[in-house]
Amino acid sequence: MTQPIRGVFCAAATPVDADNKVRLDLFAEHCRALIDEGCHGIALLGTTGEANSYSVAERKALLEAALDFGVAGDQLLPGTSSCNVPETVELTKHAVERGVRGCVLLPPFYYKGVSDEGLFRFYAQVIEGVAVDRLKVVLYHIPQVTQVPISHELIARLREAFPGTVVGIKDSAGDVENMKAMVAKFPDFSVLSGADPLMLPLLQAGGHGCITSTSNLRADALREIWENWQDAGAADRVQAAQDRINDWRGLTNAYIQLPTVKTMVARARGNDDWLNVRPPLVPLSAEERAHVWGQMEQLGQ
Amino acid sequence: MTQPIRGVFCAAATPVDADNKVRLDLFAEHCRALIDEGCHGIALLGTTGEANSYSVAERKALLEAALDFGVAGDQLLPGTSSCNVPETVELTKHAVERGVRGCVLLPPFYYKGVSDEGLFRFYAQVIEGVAVDRLKVVLYHIPQVTQVPISHELIARLREAFPGTVVGIKDSAGDVENMKAMVAKFPDFSVLSGADPLMLPLLQAGGHGCITSTSNLRADALREIWENWQDAGAADRVQAAQDRINDWRGLTNAYIQLPTVKTMVARARGNDDWLNVRPPLVPLSAEERAHVWGQMEQLGQ
Repeated sequence: MTQPIRGVFCAAATPVDADNKVRLDLFAEHCRALIDEGCHGIALLGTTGEANSYSVAERKALLEAALDFGVAGDQLLPGTSSCNVPETVELTKHAVERGVRGCVLLPPFYYKGVSDEGLFRFYAQVIEGVAVDRLKVVLYHIPQVTQVPISHELIARLREAFPGTVVGIKDSAGDVENMKAMVAKFPDFSVLSGADPLMLPLLQAGGHGCITSTSNLRADALREIWENWQDAGAADRVQAAQDRINDWRGLTNAYIQLPTVKTMVARARGNDDWLNVRPPLVPLSAEERAHVWGQMEQLGQ
Repeated sequence: MTQPIRGVFCAAATPVDADNKVRLDLFAEHCRALIDEGCHGIALLGTTGEANSYSVAERKALLEAALDFGVAGDQLLPGTSSCNVPETVELTKHAVERGVRGCVLLPPFYYKGVSDEGLFRFYAQVIEGVAVDRLKVVLYHIPQVTQVPISHELIARLREAFPGTVVGIKDSAGDVENMKAMVAKFPDFSVLSGADPLMLPLLQAGGHGCITSTSNLRADALREIWENWQDAGAADRVQAAQDRINDWRGLTNAYIQLPTVKTMVARARGNDDWLNVRPPLVPLSAEERAHVWGQMEQLGQ
């Protein structure tokens, strides 16, 4: 049996220049630095990665840039879905052929109030359209954004229809009880927290790790928890790491989270192209940026 | 000055076969029949047209199929947006180059709680990216689906920045007061109702027509209202047409609206491929279909 997907994954941000052109070079460097800083892998092109603000061609190019720069395929969990089946098949097939560890698939998010039957058909048509056995699908539950939740009934049905293919879920709803319930219900199913503060309680409940945005900045602290959480003698270190993450995550919420994360990455990486975001998001103002950078200094970077 | 966009437009449904492959031939025939039945034009690839369930390539092919089959460019208002700027530019440019009357543009709908500034930047980058003077943009307000409303402040700002380009709005929120307010506030701005029962009150308030799904079935009755609503002597005929539309629209809401509309088109056009929908939508069951078809017979078709 394949090993479950587990570890600390970064929901990597995506850099663009002042004209909104993708900075493939900066992105690839960032991915490799994240691995050096402690991430087991990179979940590129998620919500923090502004996936839906990029074209199919740009999304393929971003994945290839990371691979070309030496990030291993089995360290990558790209988001490869869109609202339509044909392009989701195209992106997913491309990623699987490049040897990625798994693909993170949002439900189609235009129509609201859709049935589990409709979502099942979407995922089934994608999996059957890709038609490659080594495809591993990580479902993506982020109902506060999509407004389209992924129910336990849907997970059960997909696992039954596609055993060995539908292998996990990224849960960004922020409710640890939902994650614990999935751990209890679905053996060998990777449950990954989308919220940094919930990784530790999730690990303690038998979960598998995280895919978070704060790891763009504090992968070291998340990895510290990962390595030591089962060691009773390291409880203080683990708590200190968790406190550090919570402080950094708190700062990412000072303004709209995503531009704030990119503003913090700009300072950490020393490149102002990281300040740019694609619409409908808007960069922080100069005043907001100064505040965030000042707070980073106080947090010790 | 350019004439405002006005008239009865059909939010045309999009046929696929049992394998979910687009039926370009059926689509083109449907578009031409809709013109014969009374539509001034076709607003293809909107919500009823399942636009977001099709790839960029499929969307271009659908527009070209209608043109190749003899529907005139100035009768077409395709939906040409997606959540990302580059593909929205690509689709919009393609449509403008094919001579369409205008392009209907949803706001990007993945992120929620976005600012008017962010939405302004999205539309501005699309318009500047297309960079063709004869582009006419119809904004698309359907907050119950997108969860991203289009405010009057945004409309005012876009009209000021792009006069002669941002020329109208499709309002599918179902609130006639919002439409009347836009008619009053924005001179020479085409306000088109997304709901059939609201076309008459909107016309009476100085509005410009409709883009609706019931016109896939009852374009004749909508055109009857359009032609006669200002003629006091025709009040009975207009009322009868409105009643007829309301009955048909009521039936489209017997189940989930979109598969119900397609089920009704299947019977009207005599082709069962119209029964198919792409996920996340699901076709009606055989029982539901029998009920809808029985009701259509009672309504007189």
